[in-house]
Amino acid sequence: MQDDLNTRICAAVDAAFDHQLTFLSDLTAHPSTRGNEQSAQDFMADELEKRGYALDRWQIDIAEIQHLPGFSPVLDPYEDAVNVVGTHRSTTQQGRSLILNGHIDVVPAGPLGMWDSPPFEPRIEGGWLYGRGGGDMKAGLASNLFALDALAACGFAPGADVYFQSVVEEECTGNGALACLARGYRADAALIPEPFSEHLAIAQLGVIWFQVHLKGLPTHVAYASQGANAIEAAFPLIRALHEMEHRWNAAENRPDDYAHMDHALNLNIGKIEGGDWTSSVPAWSVFDVRMAIFPGQSIDAAKAEIEKVILDAARENAFLSNSLPEIVYHGFHAEGYALSQDSSANALSAINALETAHHDVTGEALVREAITATTDARFFGLYANTPALVYGPRAEAIHGFNERVEIESIRRVTKATALFIADWCGTEER
Amino acid sequence: MQDDLNTRICAAVDAAFDHQLTFLSDLTAHPSTRGNEQSAQDFMADELEKRGYALDRWQIDIAEIQHLPGFSPVLDPYEDAVNVVGTHRSTTQQGRSLILNGHIDVVPAGPLGMWDSPPFEPRIEGGWLYGRGGGDMKAGLASNLFALDALAACGFAPGADVYFQSVVEEECTGNGALACLARGYRADAALIPEPFSEHLAIAQLGVIWFQVHLKGLPTHVAYASQGANAIEAAFPLIRALHEMEHRWNAAENRPDDYAHMDHALNLNIGKIEGGDWTSSVPAWSVFDVRMAIFPGQSIDAAKAEIEKVILDAARENAFLSNSLPEIVYHGFHAEGYALSQDSSANALSAINALETAHHDVTGEALVREAITATTDARFFGLYANTPALVYGPRAEAIHGFNERVEIESIRRVTKATALFIADWCGTEER
Repeated sequence: MQDDLNTRICAAVDAAFDHQLTFLSDLTAHPSTRGNEQSAQDFMADELEKRGYALDRWQIDIAEIQHLPGFSPVLDPYEDAVNVVGTHRSTTQQGRSLILNGHIDVVPAGPLGMWDSPPFEPRIEGGWLYGRGGGDMKAGLASNLFALDALAACGFAPGADVYFQSVVEEECTGNGALACLARGYRADAALIPEPFSEHLAIAQLGVIWFQVHLKGLPTHVAYASQGANAIEAAFPLIRALHEMEHRWNAAENRPDDYAHMDHALNLNIGKIEGGDWTSSVPAWSVFDVRMAIFPGQSIDAAKAEIEKVILDAARENAFLSNSLPEIVYHGFHAEGYALSQDSSANALSAINALETAHHDVTGEALVREAITATTDARFFGLYANTPALVYGPRAEAIHGFNERVEIESIRRVTKATALFIADWCGTEER
Repeated sequence: MQDDLNTRICAAVDAAFDHQLTFLSDLTAHPSTRGNEQSAQDFMADELEKRGYALDRWQIDIAEIQHLPGFSPVLDPYEDAVNVVGTHRSTTQQGRSLILNGHIDVVPAGPLGMWDSPPFEPRIEGGWLYGRGGGDMKAGLASNLFALDALAACGFAPGADVYFQSVVEEECTGNGALACLARGYRADAALIPEPFSEHLAIAQLGVIWFQVHLKGLPTHVAYASQGANAIEAAFPLIRALHEMEHRWNAAENRPDDYAHMDHALNLNIGKIEGGDWTSSVPAWSVFDVRMAIFPGQSIDAAKAEIEKVILDAARENAFLSNSLPEIVYHGFHAEGYALSQDSSANALSAINALETAHHDVTGEALVREAITATTDARFFGLYANTPALVYGPRAEAIHGFNERVEIESIRRVTKATALFIADWCGTEER
């Protein structure tokens, strides 16, 4: 009976799969970088309404979330930051409720000339869909939606409440997912199909973003020795930060999930800007840093050490010692999260259900992986006592050029998701 | 008789000096950074016309100058690059003709918060006029104009043709002065009151501007080790350029005028930019460099060595070795120029006339100085066989915050300039 249902569900995924790829391609064509998510969210809202989900669509209000644990500071206004949630309300309430979460925001494409084809004109070639955000993570949003569609095609709805969330801000703060929590959305488990090669993420890192603002003493370059170059002054600070990165990665600091990784915590100088005129000793520079922390590592302690490292290095510089750098936090204040540490019956049961679904589809055991990124899973796991399963398709070059997601992997994940929903929530007649 | 005339000229400078400071303050209030020189040039044109000079005002046409020696490559359009020249045509033609040259363009102010008062709201305090461009070199433009005014107030005009030039582009290419040459302006000498503390510049350096464009291999920072950071890749290249700077400054490479200077040639990293997203390994960076060369040093040879240094350093980097930096020239291709090497009777006579005028005003000998900047003097000296005297007031913090020019120094230079004109050109009744 269950086998028969599973077979029908998988057949329904196959039957709609061309449609799913068209949907994914259409969604990827929306260049939903930070501040530009509206058209993609319109698209998602239309698709949810068309399917009969109760639609909730709202602008994130900083005042409603800034006091909550997990909030990340932002510099930009939130006038354009809109979340979309579609709700399925079960009539039988026989099973366990579920949040299907995905983020609509994508990172910038970078110089267009370095792409083989335009990043927001998705194309399918050799079994992959190419385009910025196709893998990270619009394929996941599509998988969530078409998994539910597959149940519907078989005449069923989930036998428990399901919340389909399309959130903004995953790539810089997580405040989109946090706003969902603040709005009251809760469930017995969450599934987030981030593109980690059909592995289950059993731990994820925390991430801190900060900017370092340096001043210099500008002069005409003819008298450069009387000036202080605010651009070159950054280099020793960056070197000191890398030494800190090295210390934090030392074997004795690694939690069990990361014990086997020599370099899980990456420090990235992601942006830099400085100076106004080639023949003036530059008066200012700013560089943007992303640093990871392990699950369990305190954000406050990490920030204190980051600040100490920067200021100690600055004090070695004659000019900076009297004009210390300013450190500005403008994004992720993300703690690490380890599903592996959640020993609740609920968590074990959710993992088991996903393992079964994955095995049914692939014939293989579900690989557990500690990932070196952060995801919105932390909000559900850390702040809402909800086990969050991060499990999505295989993608390559996310955040890079020619980002791509594997078509057959999307198909398998969609099937596994549909089977997981049917198991976790149960099914009821539509 | 000559003493009497000199006394009257100096008295005329004194009499109009308050007016001159008002003029300088008004001129400095125009924020004539590159591309924004028009209102300041309007102001200059009005003042020249008001005084009866024949006005020539034209837009620089790249096609008319790009084949000429001394041309510097530009990336920006020249639609807004307008030169202004006012001509006094002598009726007696008894003396030697003169170009009074100054540049109207100023360098960017930099972060406004680092100024004690707004850079384009000039103020006078403690004997100094503060404001961006007040010293470099609007005080010089004012000095040129009011020196001629002082003669006029005494009932005289120069007894030879005088060309008052207010040019753009001194701070990045010199193409403004080059366009004056291309337009046919020639004279027996040129005076450029750049702010070098009432010293005579007997040598100036050449300057080359270049941009280095780097590519990286972007990835999600979670997989940073698979990427190549285009920002940090710049640091070893900059280090290699500083080693080149050190070699070029070695004692054995210095011409006589610079033999006493340990570090005349400054390399400046004036601007940098790179990356699009804090959590992406940056795919690109660009940094802007100013490097000086000695008089006599070949620009082509210097460029070849710069390129070799950058590419050799890049080859040490695994990613860059397969994706070499691009070097773009976008400003100064300025040769050095040494008035000290001009042994023509004309040059010696011009220097002698300025020495006399300076001594008459200050009671002191004219100090000769090899300067570590470039000026537009090179066009007259190198490409028009015209000795160019760089001699202007004392200023501080040019290209820096709180740029300032000393009031009494302006007065002295204006007097010396007026006496020099009267001597060099002779005088005729107005």
